[in-house]
Amino acid sequence: MSTPVGAHAKAAALGKLIVRMTASAGSGHPSTALSIGHILAELLYRTMRFDPRDPWHASADRLVLSAGHAVPAVYAAWADLGGVVGRSRDEARVLLPADVDKLRERDSELDGHPNPAEGFPFFDAATGSLGMGLSVAAGLAAAARLDGSPRRVFAIIGDGESREGQVWEAADFIVDHRLTNVCAIINCNGHGQAAAVSDRQSAAVLEKKLAAFGWAVRSIDGHDPKQIQAALAEVGSGDAPLAIVARTVKGWGVSALLNGNWHGKPLGLGDVATAAASLDEAATKAGPDGPALPGPAAVSGPAVRSRPDPREARWPSFDEALRSAGLGAALDKRVLATRRAYGVALKVAGDLLPSVVCLDADVSNSTFADAFAKAHPARFFECKIGEQNMVSAAAGFAAAGYIPFANSFAKFIARAYDQVELASISRANIKLVGSHAGISLAADGPSQMAVADVAFFRSLGTARADDRRSPLCWVFQPSDAVSAYHCTRLMVETPGMAYMRTFRPEVPLLYDPATATFSLGGFQVLRTGEQLSIVAAGYMTHVALRAADLLAKQGVRATVIDAYCLPFDAEKLGEELSRRGGRVLVAEDNYGGGLGSAVAELAARNGRMRCEALTVQRMPRSTRTSEEILEYCGVGAEQVADQARALLARP
Amino acid sequence: MSTPVGAHAKAAALGKLIVRMTASAGSGHPSTALSIGHILAELLYRTMRFDPRDPWHASADRLVLSAGHAVPAVYAAWADLGGVVGRSRDEARVLLPADVDKLRERDSELDGHPNPAEGFPFFDAATGSLGMGLSVAAGLAAAARLDGSPRRVFAIIGDGESREGQVWEAADFIVDHRLTNVCAIINCNGHGQAAAVSDRQSAAVLEKKLAAFGWAVRSIDGHDPKQIQAALAEVGSGDAPLAIVARTVKGWGVSALLNGNWHGKPLGLGDVATAAASLDEAATKAGPDGPALPGPAAVSGPAVRSRPDPREARWPSFDEALRSAGLGAALDKRVLATRRAYGVALKVAGDLLPSVVCLDADVSNSTFADAFAKAHPARFFECKIGEQNMVSAAAGFAAAGYIPFANSFAKFIARAYDQVELASISRANIKLVGSHAGISLAADGPSQMAVADVAFFRSLGTARADDRRSPLCWVFQPSDAVSAYHCTRLMVETPGMAYMRTFRPEVPLLYDPATATFSLGGFQVLRTGEQLSIVAAGYMTHVALRAADLLAKQGVRATVIDAYCLPFDAEKLGEELSRRGGRVLVAEDNYGGGLGSAVAELAARNGRMRCEALTVQRMPRSTRTSEEILEYCGVGAEQVADQARALLARP
Repeated sequence: MSTPVGAHAKAAALGKLIVRMTASAGSGHPSTALSIGHILAELLYRTMRFDPRDPWHASADRLVLSAGHAVPAVYAAWADLGGVVGRSRDEARVLLPADVDKLRERDSELDGHPNPAEGFPFFDAATGSLGMGLSVAAGLAAAARLDGSPRRVFAIIGDGESREGQVWEAADFIVDHRLTNVCAIINCNGHGQAAAVSDRQSAAVLEKKLAAFGWAVRSIDGHDPKQIQAALAEVGSGDAPLAIVARTVKGWGVSALLNGNWHGKPLGLGDVATAAASLDEAATKAGPDGPALPGPAAVSGPAVRSRPDPREARWPSFDEALRSAGLGAALDKRVLATRRAYGVALKVAGDLLPSVVCLDADVSNSTFADAFAKAHPARFFECKIGEQNMVSAAAGFAAAGYIPFANSFAKFIARAYDQVELASISRANIKLVGSHAGISLAADGPSQMAVADVAFFRSLGTARADDRRSPLCWVFQPSDAVSAYHCTRLMVETPGMAYMRTFRPEVPLLYDPATATFSLGGFQVLRTGEQLSIVAAGYMTHVALRAADLLAKQGVRATVIDAYCLPFDAEKLGEELSRRGGRVLVAEDNYGGGLGSAVAELAARNGRMRCEALTVQRMPRSTRTSEEILEYCGVGAEQVADQARALLARP
Repeated sequence: MSTPVGAHAKAAALGKLIVRMTASAGSGHPSTALSIGHILAELLYRTMRFDPRDPWHASADRLVLSAGHAVPAVYAAWADLGGVVGRSRDEARVLLPADVDKLRERDSELDGHPNPAEGFPFFDAATGSLGMGLSVAAGLAAAARLDGSPRRVFAIIGDGESREGQVWEAADFIVDHRLTNVCAIINCNGHGQAAAVSDRQSAAVLEKKLAAFGWAVRSIDGHDPKQIQAALAEVGSGDAPLAIVARTVKGWGVSALLNGNWHGKPLGLGDVATAAASLDEAATKAGPDGPALPGPAAVSGPAVRSRPDPREARWPSFDEALRSAGLGAALDKRVLATRRAYGVALKVAGDLLPSVVCLDADVSNSTFADAFAKAHPARFFECKIGEQNMVSAAAGFAAAGYIPFANSFAKFIARAYDQVELASISRANIKLVGSHAGISLAADGPSQMAVADVAFFRSLGTARADDRRSPLCWVFQPSDAVSAYHCTRLMVETPGMAYMRTFRPEVPLLYDPATATFSLGGFQVLRTGEQLSIVAAGYMTHVALRAADLLAKQGVRATVIDAYCLPFDAEKLGEELSRRGGRVLVAEDNYGGGLGSAVAELAARNGRMRCEALTVQRMPRSTRTSEEILEYCGVGAEQVADQARALLARP
């Protein structure tokens, strides 16, 4: 490191790199980045405890750049600090100032927005879709507290960004859980993309809002080194989390960027030198520089925090687990809801693995996460009715090495699909479990029914997460309590994102708890008949079995396959389906795009099968019983049987 | 109407119906419903101006029950008032007290949660997934102001519900747009589903939050008739929108429901009589009754507000529209981005139809909705960075007869998928347009790329909206400016939800502006070759054409089809594809579940085709150019050509 300078000089130095790298890239957001130069200088060169040579350090403070488009500022500082980049410790290398010219190049670690998975491990989570960072910070901070770590988490949020409701869900969550190791820094540069921010996002109004939400608020000039330093020194000192409302200038120091709307626009390469001179001039004009920046503060605490290997946990048998949970009667009746079995399995996972945490959105008595909450209260995080914050906070837990399960009604997880997508960019090891999926809940009506969820999550699962070809997301649709128990275990053991869909009704056990096994990409042949195959999952497996019974009475012999996992092993399932003359009917209690599409793609590739899918054919409504709503939507047992016969009758 | 009573007596009377109907249904949320009995009494029997015999009245005040699970209270009042139900004026009938026993039955107008589409037109929008109602109210209120209507809009929101960030997006929007004709009533009964609400959602904290957000706040005892009356009398009187924070008792009046967690649980039919006695006792104990309730206040203003038929608008030609927009040069260069053509078309729609309104989320200079904003400022509603509120507010506009276009980056519309689903339950006539879709935007990276959007919206489109068999959602993926212009027109002219996906790059015109026509479910054969068909849409149509060029050089003759609309006419497309020996390759710049799945389903049903889809095969990242990211994700022109040859080579 060169001789320490103050924040004005540092902001100017970072500014030059910011202007240069975005000009090289031909895109990016230099004006936003320039507005946080002083804040980053005081954060990264004085306040934060971290080691640029070990961005994976388990005890270091963390920065979540929620306003992800400001990332050139962090890249500039990282290059200046000689920070390490790379996908893992094995691939680590020091980022050089010259590397910043590769911003947004295909092989660069410097992605367009914060993206740890591309090799920038100083960040914990992808950001760039706005409003999510404070939730990620909350998850990281809660994890640090569980670890007994001195880690603090700083989140930089844009003023315009703070319009996103999720920011306020996170603000509540952080106060609820007393996460005073979080510091929110609101960058009030006054400008959004299309225009100035609303007065509702002015610094003055934000100060009132944050105070009303129970935060300690400090208002500063975000280009005054001493004010920044003083505010940052207060982090963690009070009973309330600290919010710093920083008034800043978009495009600070570069006169060319100060007039007109330069949001998201770089200067040309020919203007870089002029901008550099302008930055030097601005630093000088700002008056005597602030106190010398000593560089990152030293970290104390372990650099690596080992977590147990979830594959080494010894799970009790299904029967043992149910008896321990006081649900032994279900073993005799052989009837249990999948969500109840999930609750049992989740609690067992918590017993076995201290790295399992659970988040729920005020419905733990429906998702049956309440068993976990009771057994492991310190690892249960009630998010109340704020699903967006729940999912992003889960991504924060995952970044800290935890295995978070986030639960709500499947329908309400749709509230957080953008958060799910951002988590998928981080390859976050999060587990989402939606109860009351599909239409079998009947009486509460369509506002509570998840019917597009399989299409959405399967869509993620069609892409690879990494070179190991594992899908970006596994989807589990267990049909009974035994499979729900085992699918939960698969979720725990398998790195990466997974979504499980449980449903409301009590259903009979379909599997022998003593012998049944379940695997990634697996399926089960429940009944064999040589004329056609009926493929289903979840509640619809029971409907398919009823349809097969009806068909049997009519002399039609159908195979029934429970395809509890997406993506399935296409080769094995293809072999299985080809055996039955290639006639396949898929039955689903959701809209199209799910299992039926997956099987259709298999069949269409194969070219010698004939496949149809029955999916929910019309907008559902309330009915008193599951049977009624299935019939209303065209996917009842008789309709499945009718369609099967029609399929057989076709030439 | 019987002799007027006060709110205590009315609350008890409604309570009896609430208890009875939920006991009959065997499900529902009586305790929540009972907590708003007094509020509804003062609202519906005194304050609100409406005609129970004409719930469609265009000038009447409106109630949005955001806490939708409290709906038995409204059903009770509606039956008591002799209100009209039915899907249209032609089907109208008076709801009788006996009808409430049919709550949640398959043929009842009384769906489990508010659901106007099932025949309860007193509501404007489906609710039940929490946190959306205030946004709907905002849309209704903004529409009323455009109409010069005296209409006021009341929204009842649960305390626990107010944890949802969207509530605060709506609160900002309402202040931004000075919608003082909205009144928010927060029902503070202190209990959520799983447990008591957080202190963050206590009445005291909510008062502070609402004040900080710029609302006028009145705090009342929600069971005190005079306090309710006095607060409601203030609606519309000040410069700020009014929020009434009402402290209430969950399960009011029914002692059996006051202890333990009764959320979402009805009493048994055998307990109804005891509950009724308890309600009478509670009303008596509450002291002298409040002032006599005169019944609904009289409405003034037109009962019907006619809107122009969008199909009768006479659109200028593409050339004329572009020249008017100052984009005539594009006609010579024959190059224009689809999002720019959309901007032109949207502005034209606004010129032609006063019923077209536009909402945008601070990106109107990217979506190109800014042309509309400039031409029609009174009908442009800047939502700032709050996509959830934007979509639900659009549903409010639609309920008032407007044709709202809501715009953002396609990626950020994912923020509002649950809001999209709720709007679909209402069959809301909303138009969603996502720019920068797919991966062709390249440099900004995956946080800005919509890659699961086609799967999600197509999923909705697989179900029918109504008996006319129209899909719940149309998806448009125009490939060039000409088709984008025409697809926008189709969106305007077609009732119901539609989603259009525009993309970032400038692309050549593929169609002759003078002759090309586009239709619902249509597709275009751009090039004919008899060995196989390549089906694409949007940006990928250009890639498919490049692939066909490459194949031509290799002696392979491929047809290229631009499938710009989903769902497509499966019969016609099937005929077209069967002609080419049934070999079909689909190429998409999104994850699976979209066009490729739709074509695979067609092929699998047909059974004599062989179809494969190339979709985005791995998590995207930043690259400097579109070509690089397409190649990185496995969907570049050469890869499409390679896959086409592989498909032909298979036996």
